[in-house]
Amino acid sequence: MIDTLYAKLDAAYPEMVEIRRHLHMNPEPSFQETQTAQFIRDYYEKLGVDVKHNIGGNGVVATIQGAKPGKTVALRADFDALPIQDQKEGVSYRSTVDGVMHACGHDGHTATLLVLGKILYTMREELAGTYILIHQHAEELVPGGAKSMIEAGVLEGVDAIFGTHLWSTTPFGRIDTRVGPIMAAADSFQLKIQGRGGHGASPHETIDAVVVGSQIVSTLQSLVSRRVDPLESAVLSIGSFVAQNPFNIIADQAVLSGTVRSFKEDVRSLMETEMERVIKGTSLANNSRYEFNFKRGYPAVINHEKETLYIKSIAETVPGVTEVFDCPPQMGGEDFAYYLEEIPGAFFFTGAMPDGDVFPHHHPKFDFKEEAMLVAAKTLGTAAIHFHQ
Amino acid sequence: MIDTLYAKLDAAYPEMVEIRRHLHMNPEPSFQETQTAQFIRDYYEKLGVDVKHNIGGNGVVATIQGAKPGKTVALRADFDALPIQDQKEGVSYRSTVDGVMHACGHDGHTATLLVLGKILYTMREELAGTYILIHQHAEELVPGGAKSMIEAGVLEGVDAIFGTHLWSTTPFGRIDTRVGPIMAAADSFQLKIQGRGGHGASPHETIDAVVVGSQIVSTLQSLVSRRVDPLESAVLSIGSFVAQNPFNIIADQAVLSGTVRSFKEDVRSLMETEMERVIKGTSLANNSRYEFNFKRGYPAVINHEKETLYIKSIAETVPGVTEVFDCPPQMGGEDFAYYLEEIPGAFFFTGAMPDGDVFPHHHPKFDFKEEAMLVAAKTLGTAAIHFHQ
Amino acid sequence: MIDTLYAKLDAAYPEMVEIRRHLHMNPEPSFQETQTAQFIRDYYEKLGVDVKHNIGGNGVVATIQGAKPGKTVALRADFDALPIQDQKEGVSYRSTVDGVMHACGHDGHTATLLVLGKILYTMREELAGTYILIHQHAEELVPGGAKSMIEAGVLEGVDAIFGTHLWSTTPFGRIDTRVGPIMAAADSFQLKIQGRGGHGASPHETIDAVVVGSQIVSTLQSLVSRRVDPLESAVLSIGSFVAQNPFNIIADQAVLSGTVRSFKEDVRSLMETEMERVIKGTSLANNSRYEFNFKRGYPAVINHEKETLYIKSIAETVPGVTEVFDCPPQMGGEDFAYYLEEIPGAFFFTGAMPDGDVFPHHHPKFDFKEEAMLVAAKTLGTAAIHFHQ
Amino acid sequence: MIDTLYAKLDAAYPEMVEIRRHLHMNPEPSFQETQTAQFIRDYYEKLGVDVKHNIGGNGVVATIQGAKPGKTVALRADFDALPIQDQKEGVSYRSTVDGVMHACGHDGHTATLLVLGKILYTMREELAGTYILIHQHAEELVPGGAKSMIEAGVLEGVDAIFGTHLWSTTPFGRIDTRVGPIMAAADSFQLKIQGRGGHGASPHETIDAVVVGSQIVSTLQSLVSRRVDPLESAVLSIGSFVAQNPFNIIADQAVLSGTVRSFKEDVRSLMETEMERVIKGTSLANNSRYEFNFKRGYPAVINHEKETLYIKSIAETVPGVTEVFDCPPQMGGEDFAYYLEEIPGAFFFTGAMPDGDVFPHHHPKFDFKEEAMLVAAKTLGTAAIHFHQ
Repeated sequence: MIDTLYAKLDAAYPEMVEIRRHLHMNPEPSFQETQTAQFIRDYYEKLGVDVKHNIGGNGVVATIQGAKPGKTVALRADFDALPIQDQKEGVSYRSTVDGVMHACGHDGHTATLLVLGKILYTMREELAGTYILIHQHAEELVPGGAKSMIEAGVLEGVDAIFGTHLWSTTPFGRIDTRVGPIMAAADSFQLKIQGRGGHGASPHETIDAVVVGSQIVSTLQSLVSRRVDPLESAVLSIGSFVAQNPFNIIADQAVLSGTVRSFKEDVRSLMETEMERVIKGTSLANNSRYEFNFKRGYPAVINHEKETLYIKSIAETVPGVTEVFDCPPQMGGEDFAYYLEEIPGAFFFTGAMPDGDVFPHHHPKFDFKEEAMLVAAKTLGTAAIHFHQ
Repeated sequence: MIDTLYAKLDAAYPEMVEIRRHLHMNPEPSFQETQTAQFIRDYYEKLGVDVKHNIGGNGVVATIQGAKPGKTVALRADFDALPIQDQKEGVSYRSTVDGVMHACGHDGHTATLLVLGKILYTMREELAGTYILIHQHAEELVPGGAKSMIEAGVLEGVDAIFGTHLWSTTPFGRIDTRVGPIMAAADSFQLKIQGRGGHGASPHETIDAVVVGSQIVSTLQSLVSRRVDPLESAVLSIGSFVAQNPFNIIADQAVLSGTVRSFKEDVRSLMETEMERVIKGTSLANNSRYEFNFKRGYPAVINHEKETLYIKSIAETVPGVTEVFDCPPQMGGEDFAYYLEEIPGAFFFTGAMPDGDVFPHHHPKFDFKEEAMLVAAKTLGTAAIHFHQ
Repeated sequence: MIDTLYAKLDAAYPEMVEIRRHLHMNPEPSFQETQTAQFIRDYYEKLGVDVKHNIGGNGVVATIQGAKPGKTVALRADFDALPIQDQKEGVSYRSTVDGVMHACGHDGHTATLLVLGKILYTMREELAGTYILIHQHAEELVPGGAKSMIEAGVLEGVDAIFGTHLWSTTPFGRIDTRVGPIMAAADSFQLKIQGRGGHGASPHETIDAVVVGSQIVSTLQSLVSRRVDPLESAVLSIGSFVAQNPFNIIADQAVLSGTVRSFKEDVRSLMETEMERVIKGTSLANNSRYEFNFKRGYPAVINHEKETLYIKSIAETVPGVTEVFDCPPQMGGEDFAYYLEEIPGAFFFTGAMPDGDVFPHHHPKFDFKEEAMLVAAKTLGTAAIHFHQ
Repeated sequence: MIDTLYAKLDAAYPEMVEIRRHLHMNPEPSFQETQTAQFIRDYYEKLGVDVKHNIGGNGVVATIQGAKPGKTVALRADFDALPIQDQKEGVSYRSTVDGVMHACGHDGHTATLLVLGKILYTMREELAGTYILIHQHAEELVPGGAKSMIEAGVLEGVDAIFGTHLWSTTPFGRIDTRVGPIMAAADSFQLKIQGRGGHGASPHETIDAVVVGSQIVSTLQSLVSRRVDPLESAVLSIGSFVAQNPFNIIADQAVLSGTVRSFKEDVRSLMETEMERVIKGTSLANNSRYEFNFKRGYPAVINHEKETLYIKSIAETVPGVTEVFDCPPQMGGEDFAYYLEEIPGAFFFTGAMPDGDVFPHHHPKFDFKEEAMLVAAKTLGTAAIHFHQ
């Protein structure tokens, strides 16, 4: 049966590429992906697949019922793009939308799942169990689409969920995953320090927001170095410090922003609490005021042990997979996290490094090796079909 | 003779106001004051006063020769305006030039000296000595006009120089001056910190320019607190700290700028040297690079003892002067400093606080009490005439 | 055969306790353990066991040859004590040596291995392979005894090594271990900051060593927060900051000392290099000088995968072991690390929490549950005997 | 009359030296100067001078009544020594008391005033007014003797007071003084930072008092750099930072101490308030606790204008005075401050630089040129006698 799957996928690869390129040329930003959702819906409807739309927003869910009894397994692909100007050169499928680009490979995820869905549908008489194909909108923008799709019921009755991310910096042929935390909780914050401006020659009549901000930046370094368990991971980065004034004016205000990454909820909460403590105390020390806005992003993606070992064992059998790698966790965020908070499952990276220049995700010249879609489809498909045995 | 001076000045006060308002409506920025220079030249030429123009730039110098032998005394007035949009309301003499404004009172200085010059010229048969009337361009913009006018020879043979600044925050009727430093050396600097940018989740692959900049700001506080003699004055203010990035990107670069104020050359040099030391060391500590550009402004204005005591004693006799105040030094800069590096002299502030709202110098609504011009003219005139006795 | 081992160990438990208490009452500090070494040597010689002494210092090595062919396995126990005053109350076996105490359980390790050795010797006709019993001196004091014993050849021909630490804060009955890093590299450092002292009222004539030291402490926080990969562990703690002066004297010198902990050689080297960079740069920034002495302690103890899984599977069969726990790594150091750099092996903790008050290792009231020696002996003995099968 | 004074003083110089050396060999620390007080009392009583003792402690006050009417003028000399071991070599008058030494010249002050008092007494028939000779104890140790002597009434009816300090680093022949602040307010403080100690490998279980202390030291630098008017003087020096622990223990506590110097009450109060603000805020930021004890020393010595100009004009006439110098203020403290808070007066330094090696005040090898006593006596005597004219 798996051989049939592989043969059908191999045959459908040109369609997969075609779909991917179509989507690549017509990207839509998070929460505005109505055309893409319509495209997905049309694709399934034309095939006769049971498909529901506007699930928790622009989400689309197709259901394929195998002829034999079995468990219910969900596969997820996200389909939103990014507010980035495509700067790729020498390709026919460059984005046609100004300032919007599939710079993260979600076009590939969608093409992969659509074609896999079509083939599973054609094989439904031989298959056991139920296959839920979750086409999720808005992965790139907090609060994301996963949460609302879950609230809309997409995980009801689902036994396990699997998902993958095509990864441009992982060698083609390699599957990366790990038990436990695989992607971090990615939170953001903004801090406005309100001092009292004045003339550079009269510091005593001011509260210097640049000095206060600098003290806060320095003191915050001690959170990771002193307050977080050294066996745990945490990152606090302040990417932005803005207090723009004429050279002879002391800053009235400084605006800082940045991100916090962590893998465990208690570390995440500790960081938020301790940041506020440092900011509050330093403000008191300087007689300044502040507004601190800590905005939680997605939680960490925590792979379930059994399902991850399952995916690893499946991956080792898939043609085209040359290595299954027990990767370190990544510090980036993914709202796949929410699915894994609800039901068992695993997330993995499918190596998609291009042959030529390699650009990281979210880069204006980002691209990936399209054959990786086939590897992803075979791995997800095998995992789904075997899951019922 | 002084009574004659006072009577003539009182009579010419309307002309003084007229000139001031004309100039106020037609301001020109530093180094571009060609029309103003022409106006001054025309004024003197019409009277028959010996006048030279294009002195060290747009500078204009008139010479009045008393009939009797005596010393040579110089009086100085600056005539440039500022790149500020006039926002005064309800006055007829608002600037007619967009984005340019006499927001520092140099229009008043010019009107004062022109009318005083005219009257001295009419009294020349009774006067002793020589009167050099220095109309200086470009006080507001480093390197200023004083230096080049001196290089052009305006101080040759001059025994002493006096100058005043109408001051909008000093009560009308008060003359402020002091022996020794009266205005600070005002230097500026820009610092570019070059780190290595990267993703907020991967600090170990970056050199965080915000962290480096914050360390530098904090460490620089110890220059004034530890390295400057506590009996001396020094200010180091960093008005601007700019590293603008998305929240999840670690800063590649931070640009800081600010000002240093001091009264003594050795303190000034110490600040520059020690700033570079701190910046260099902190950069080394962080493996970052930097560009540090310290730009010297004017030196401190150091009043000579004898001439200052002379001005104070003169001022006490001038009608309209209600108080002669031994003021603390000001942290602002003035290129009158250069004259006092060459020859004896004194600089003083003439109280010019308006009756209604008071705005500081360089404010878009700045104005001054015009009667103060009369006080200034009488004080400078008396000082000049008596100087030969 | 294992049942025989267990029966014999159970019967010999009183002797084990007796030996442990004798050693506890007669502790010797690291590198001075001549009486203890003599005691070990005498014990084996009386039995007729082949024993060598003065191995790499005070080390003692006994060899037991099984009658059947097999591999060579080493078991290690350390026997030095600490320069701590015993403050235990209500026990008969308190240290009789002022200021010296077995506050880490090495007395128990020694008793365990001696009695286990004796029993293995009695069973030698049934046993396969060779048993190397390494009684190591000087674990508590860098450079430790392991390195010199290895240099003296104790690991020659050895196939694997096992060792345990009785652990007072781990519940009795539990065996803790893990694949990979189980104990940290523990390095120490001392930093002398040389400023220029002077009177508190004249900071400008000094280089304030307290200010320099404080800057260094603050800047060093950014090593862990910015320069170490957030997925790796590293600790930098400055335990001591001493600049003692009259209140009105600015510090000439400050002496800081502390410790660095890490699990990977590249992190360890990074910390050393980056510490020096920060210290050098901050010194340059302040025109101060420094002496920085970074003293490497033991490397991290890195358990080999196969041998660790072996120990875990063995431990699960040992009577008295109620749980085998996959523990997080510990930040403390152990020179068992050196053995594992040379040959395969594993280190584990034997739960030895007392029934009453629990004190951590190196505490003046430290004690452990003696029955844990029996668990340790059974686990090590089983691991050694089974190793040849 | 002044010539008589000078002649008598010249003749009595050997006695002055003798007294000074006697006192130098028999020093007594602050508040324990009973023998010295007795010596002073005996000296005056033998002469028949009206003398009162135990004034506000060990203080002694002699009163000489001139035959003619006049004002009342006070002269003050302090007589306590320091807890310093005399290390002078090659002099016959080295301290005979272990650990106690006249290392500040108060022996000279006493000898000067005693002999001057004797001579004024012999001249009383010619003199106008009243002479109050204040021999003050305990200048070296806060709260000092001046305050309690004032409370005991020594200034009642006194019109002005003069005092001098022999100064070993000022050239012999020079008199230094200035109008306004001449010596600083010298305050001290102690700060205990209470963190939570622990093992160096587990920072997250601790509150690191070394890190907190370092942040406080760094942040306090911004008080002088940002919060004090740059035209005012202030010094904050932390001389001592003590947190002594084994290298692998995180500090439970750090104890810092230091001094604050200022010339104006509002600056002094600002420093105290802002120090507490910084300490409180930084403690809050770190979740640590603190005890902050700010101990006010003597206020600044503020010379009165009229009396200071008087002393300067007198000094210019005194034989042996080669220069009267308008000195910068000194950052050291003096309880002469309290007298000048009550009545007009002036304090000045009498140059007493030795011919050979020069050691600063409070140095174990401190000494001064004894002829300076004669200069001091003549200056004080002339000032006192002329005061009534």
